[in-house]
Amino acid sequence: MINRKLRMGMIGGGPGAFIGAVHRLAAQMDGQITLVAGAFSSHAEKSRQAGRELFLNPDRVYGSYTELIEREKTLPEEERIDFVSIVTPNHLHYDPARLALENGFDVVVDKPMTFDLAEARKLQALVENSGLLLCLTHTYTGYPMVKEARHLVREGRLGKIRKVYVEYPQGWLASPLEKEGNKQASWRTDPTKSGMAGCMGDIGTHAANLAEYVSGLKITALCADIETVVPGRKLDDDGGVLLRFDNQATGVLIASQVATGEENCIKLRVYGESGGLEWKQDEANTLVLKWPDRPTEILRTGGPGASAVALHNTRTPAGHPEGYLEAFANLYRNFGLCLRARLEGTTPQEAWKDFPGVEDGVRGMLFIEKVIASGKSDQKWTEL
Amino acid sequence: MINRKLRMGMIGGGPGAFIGAVHRLAAQMDGQITLVAGAFSSHAEKSRQAGRELFLNPDRVYGSYTELIEREKTLPEEERIDFVSIVTPNHLHYDPARLALENGFDVVVDKPMTFDLAEARKLQALVENSGLLLCLTHTYTGYPMVKEARHLVREGRLGKIRKVYVEYPQGWLASPLEKEGNKQASWRTDPTKSGMAGCMGDIGTHAANLAEYVSGLKITALCADIETVVPGRKLDDDGGVLLRFDNQATGVLIASQVATGEENCIKLRVYGESGGLEWKQDEANTLVLKWPDRPTEILRTGGPGASAVALHNTRTPAGHPEGYLEAFANLYRNFGLCLRARLEGTTPQEAWKDFPGVEDGVRGMLFIEKVIASGKSDQKWTEL
Amino acid sequence: MINRKLRMGMIGGGPGAFIGAVHRLAAQMDGQITLVAGAFSSHAEKSRQAGRELFLNPDRVYGSYTELIEREKTLPEEERIDFVSIVTPNHLHYDPARLALENGFDVVVDKPMTFDLAEARKLQALVENSGLLLCLTHTYTGYPMVKEARHLVREGRLGKIRKVYVEYPQGWLASPLEKEGNKQASWRTDPTKSGMAGCMGDIGTHAANLAEYVSGLKITALCADIETVVPGRKLDDDGGVLLRFDNQATGVLIASQVATGEENCIKLRVYGESGGLEWKQDEANTLVLKWPDRPTEILRTGGPGASAVALHNTRTPAGHPEGYLEAFANLYRNFGLCLRARLEGTTPQEAWKDFPGVEDGVRGMLFIEKVIASGKSDQKWTEL
Amino acid sequence: MINRKLRMGMIGGGPGAFIGAVHRLAAQMDGQITLVAGAFSSHAEKSRQAGRELFLNPDRVYGSYTELIEREKTLPEEERIDFVSIVTPNHLHYDPARLALENGFDVVVDKPMTFDLAEARKLQALVENSGLLLCLTHTYTGYPMVKEARHLVREGRLGKIRKVYVEYPQGWLASPLEKEGNKQASWRTDPTKSGMAGCMGDIGTHAANLAEYVSGLKITALCADIETVVPGRKLDDDGGVLLRFDNQATGVLIASQVATGEENCIKLRVYGESGGLEWKQDEANTLVLKWPDRPTEILRTGGPGASAVALHNTRTPAGHPEGYLEAFANLYRNFGLCLRARLEGTTPQEAWKDFPGVEDGVRGMLFIEKVIASGKSDQKWTEL
Repeated sequence: MINRKLRMGMIGGGPGAFIGAVHRLAAQMDGQITLVAGAFSSHAEKSRQAGRELFLNPDRVYGSYTELIEREKTLPEEERIDFVSIVTPNHLHYDPARLALENGFDVVVDKPMTFDLAEARKLQALVENSGLLLCLTHTYTGYPMVKEARHLVREGRLGKIRKVYVEYPQGWLASPLEKEGNKQASWRTDPTKSGMAGCMGDIGTHAANLAEYVSGLKITALCADIETVVPGRKLDDDGGVLLRFDNQATGVLIASQVATGEENCIKLRVYGESGGLEWKQDEANTLVLKWPDRPTEILRTGGPGASAVALHNTRTPAGHPEGYLEAFANLYRNFGLCLRARLEGTTPQEAWKDFPGVEDGVRGMLFIEKVIASGKSDQKWTEL
Repeated sequence: MINRKLRMGMIGGGPGAFIGAVHRLAAQMDGQITLVAGAFSSHAEKSRQAGRELFLNPDRVYGSYTELIEREKTLPEEERIDFVSIVTPNHLHYDPARLALENGFDVVVDKPMTFDLAEARKLQALVENSGLLLCLTHTYTGYPMVKEARHLVREGRLGKIRKVYVEYPQGWLASPLEKEGNKQASWRTDPTKSGMAGCMGDIGTHAANLAEYVSGLKITALCADIETVVPGRKLDDDGGVLLRFDNQATGVLIASQVATGEENCIKLRVYGESGGLEWKQDEANTLVLKWPDRPTEILRTGGPGASAVALHNTRTPAGHPEGYLEAFANLYRNFGLCLRARLEGTTPQEAWKDFPGVEDGVRGMLFIEKVIASGKSDQKWTEL
Repeated sequence: MINRKLRMGMIGGGPGAFIGAVHRLAAQMDGQITLVAGAFSSHAEKSRQAGRELFLNPDRVYGSYTELIEREKTLPEEERIDFVSIVTPNHLHYDPARLALENGFDVVVDKPMTFDLAEARKLQALVENSGLLLCLTHTYTGYPMVKEARHLVREGRLGKIRKVYVEYPQGWLASPLEKEGNKQASWRTDPTKSGMAGCMGDIGTHAANLAEYVSGLKITALCADIETVVPGRKLDDDGGVLLRFDNQATGVLIASQVATGEENCIKLRVYGESGGLEWKQDEANTLVLKWPDRPTEILRTGGPGASAVALHNTRTPAGHPEGYLEAFANLYRNFGLCLRARLEGTTPQEAWKDFPGVEDGVRGMLFIEKVIASGKSDQKWTEL
Repeated sequence: MINRKLRMGMIGGGPGAFIGAVHRLAAQMDGQITLVAGAFSSHAEKSRQAGRELFLNPDRVYGSYTELIEREKTLPEEERIDFVSIVTPNHLHYDPARLALENGFDVVVDKPMTFDLAEARKLQALVENSGLLLCLTHTYTGYPMVKEARHLVREGRLGKIRKVYVEYPQGWLASPLEKEGNKQASWRTDPTKSGMAGCMGDIGTHAANLAEYVSGLKITALCADIETVVPGRKLDDDGGVLLRFDNQATGVLIASQVATGEENCIKLRVYGESGGLEWKQDEANTLVLKWPDRPTEILRTGGPGASAVALHNTRTPAGHPEGYLEAFANLYRNFGLCLRARLEGTTPQEAWKDFPGVEDGVRGMLFIEKVIASGKSDQKWTEL
């Protein structure tokens, strides 16, 4: 047993970033992981500033991810980082991940996994060949009630799945924030940083991933209406997509960043032959089960009837709400448990392996490529 | 001023029917209309039985709609019906409506208006030539908060409309009820009675009508995935549709009768440049207004901030919920107010004219024809 | 079988009244009752005006309730009213009810039943001696899901009842509307018309009645803090009450008319040894069942699992919301079914007898007297 | 500036405890505090086991709080703990807190602050004389929307406060869990560990604290019905309390641990002359504002219209729900910011001082003493 916290090095997440802070908080929430090194910015001084604010040893705050990986590798095993967490914009996911893997470091990387599908496939090969772990932070799969939903579908409680509705309406890009100096908006609407997709890459992939995760199905074809609603924007900011799945189920995916006034209420509904379920982030600790012949049931995080897999991902008693950060932390916790098992040479439990990985990343990039292609096509269906 | 209740004759709505009872209740709710005659069934005895249960004069209970219209026409003006209400299955809408109009009777007819588009256009010509009124019972437009929503969009409160999401998920046909003697299911899944569409005709038209009613826009093109999910069923029982509107807005329409466990929660969301709104039947007395820069607002039936048009369609103080029957009654009330005005030779108020009419009926049949065509097409967009 | 609608005469409910219109609508909703006569106002011309607007025969529109009852009594049996509906302010409930009963007419009367407890007891004696029916319109007991709640408690589904919380927060009297010419506010805050209580009589009695109706228990003692919050007001406009019930259960009752911004969301929670339930008017078609050892269940009006008694009081399929007017109509319908049975000499079904009667009225007046007395007492508990 | 994390030593929170883990997680969430020492159990081996699982240096894992405080004091300043966090049952709050304060360590202590009022007053004197900080973990005051509520009341947005309703219904003690080996239930129902109150000490104090925190008022008198519902239990498990406040406002407090099926939905409603507000833990990121003359408003954590004080206590963008642990962490964060300021000799910002302290602790113990006394009294009002 390795009797210590796992050591994390962060790439990106310097001043002004949002998701970096979320990753740090989520990683360290359960006391199993500690941040010890970072290349928080390509501006060396900004990186140092971040390091100071995080109380890091200045020797382990670097000016680039190359430096971080190379220098950490030279440190004694009992000191150097165990893994890197990559929280840069999309165009800076692949290369640090590649370098980390090539140097024997496991990887957590924000979604979408890479800039394009080609990079994703290269990363997949690297992961598979190295035997290292890669965790992709599709946050919403970390919620206990999302895991419960998946569990119930797997158990066959809904019968054969027929319909999947998933939606992610946001409103924050309803006006051209990218022209007003908003850093988050700027890179997300910039094709050189975000990739070929805007909205579909940023939140459409979350929706597609959630649908596949819970239903256990794979999208096999899609028909998309992809829009750029705000004039002058270079990438899509909205879209509606008809879906076909590998068991002949069909579905609808909605993602928008111009649904004025909406926050982040990603929502999933799945219907099978014998029942339906509904989950949404606004009431994240509630899973609604609908039946044709008996009253609707409300499952709750930590409440009666919750499965072992949901409880494994729960920290507080029912009614003390767990939120986004706890969901995020569940990804890190399961990744950490698996990493610890690998370091200890033991076999991880099934429940620990439940975090999004490189395959989800490849599927996400495939979704992006196909949904954008479909948006430009006059043909109805585009196959994945 | 005509100092009496308006007199209604009903066609259909005999024993075992559901919607006939709803029409009777809605029509008579406000004490402005009274049922005095009926051809409730083509079985003369069943029609008589219905008449007895409704305490009608047996002389005015008929064995067919032809008989009803012809015999009523021979009655003295101070006695005979003012209008007919047609609550038969779809294939029996057109001919009674035609006969009524040709004989000078105004018409209320359940939706969809006719069996097919050709009939709808003939009916439109008849209405326009006769100067008579036709009310099509798209119930959901009768809710006070739906009218409020439409009012706010018209006033420009949301800015230019960009997105429209409308959905009508039902679960009652998730199993083949039509094979188990369920009368409602039987005719709705029978192409000889329902027309070319099942789900899309029954509830898809409601959704499309609601979207156009509130947004003030017209659907110009659509791309549909139309499914028959339950094996052996002859008509569609499910569909997802991408929408384009005449102001370049886009949208998504979902209608399903196999969303297991769902009731009748038709829901509409409309987003403009400056705000968004949300209404759903489950919380019918609430209209949610979402803003990018200030707190979400909750408008309530009868509550502060409600417009004159909403109040015109409201019966009770805020917090005493109005429901489906009151919404239905609002259609009859406005129809009745206009009919009374016509009989009195006065000009109806603007708010009274707010009930769905023959044009909505034609658009509904057009929607059905095109959405089914799109479902069969490999081409992405089908224009309306 | 009496093959006709029941005939109603209304006392009160003239121009400007609110509850009169509700009674007319509720009474006639199901086509079993028809308004044929009225003394709508003590101003003869106002009464006539109301009669005209309601399309009544002018011969049957009277200038006083005395006239109404005496003249109707002289009409032939096949023409005269079957019952009166009394919708005047509280101080004008008793005498018309007395006169009606003494002349053989059944009675529907708005709540609270009388001006004071002494009147209530006299009325009780009259009803019991006459064998006539009296229906007291405690509206909230008419909701299908309230009836379901009562049914489940009776069946023992919650086990022995331990706790009852009931609340009725309103905000409409948070400012002195009675000084601004508001007719509803004026009589309700006037001790010569309302009786010894304001808020406690108007809505506290609804709350107490609902608690006893669903729990099947009787309040045996109470401890009240009764407040007059708005300066200058003569009657209470707010109160909190601790309750003791006859099975040793305890509870809390809240009623306020100065809970600024609140509408009419009367809410009841009942907890037993093995489960709890919750119902509130804002989501009137939902009954929440809470269990210690399994998921919360949601029963819905018309939905799966609803009992026969709930279905008897339901008009529409699940998801088509029924509201306040339908709940009100359920009182009239059950009263009407029992009245019809009496006229026909048959035995009413159990489910028909489920409407509030003279005993509820006496208990309501007892509650008022005791809750006001407790409010003035330094002693903790006041027994009923 | 002290460029390091603050160092925490924990007292209690060993194997099987619930709240200890919550404290550790909350304290360390924001990367400002680190656990370095602990006396997790009075069983030395259990304490060591906890230390190992938390990756602590075994030298700093102690067998008693006396040992912890005495030994830490001997460590060099740059190494020793800055403060202790006391997470033991109630009877073990006072003495460790006393010892810590006497030895110059700041204190975080779980609620209720002490075993009885006398201890609370002694602790208050110690805190005031020492100039050290004491943070009492009334978690619910840590929610951003609770802070927003308090802010709006302070700003006068609701006008003069008239009514306060607060409730905390739980169901977990509806059966005698304490007889089934449940550790949480055992000490909470044991008067030698919990103090004179059960339910009222455990959750009644939370409710009272929340009411005073948001309203800015002080309870001056109360009238309580205190019940022991489950047979054989030694302390109260339920109660209803009428409240009077120092500005003449009144209110109602409900706390129960036998409300079968309820989780932890503490809920607060406050009504003033010009508006009302509502907050509940189940929808913790929502604050409902109700107005007499305009639509209800929904404020959201991180959403438009949120005040600076709410934003200071918010970590994620609107719609990414923050939960119980983040609320808890806000207490630690503000405490930590103030402690850091003290260590640095700077003046803390106003927003940092917003955490419950020793005065809240004294008021809590006073509430317990009086509410239990009132429960036993025949007199209506008991003054605080």
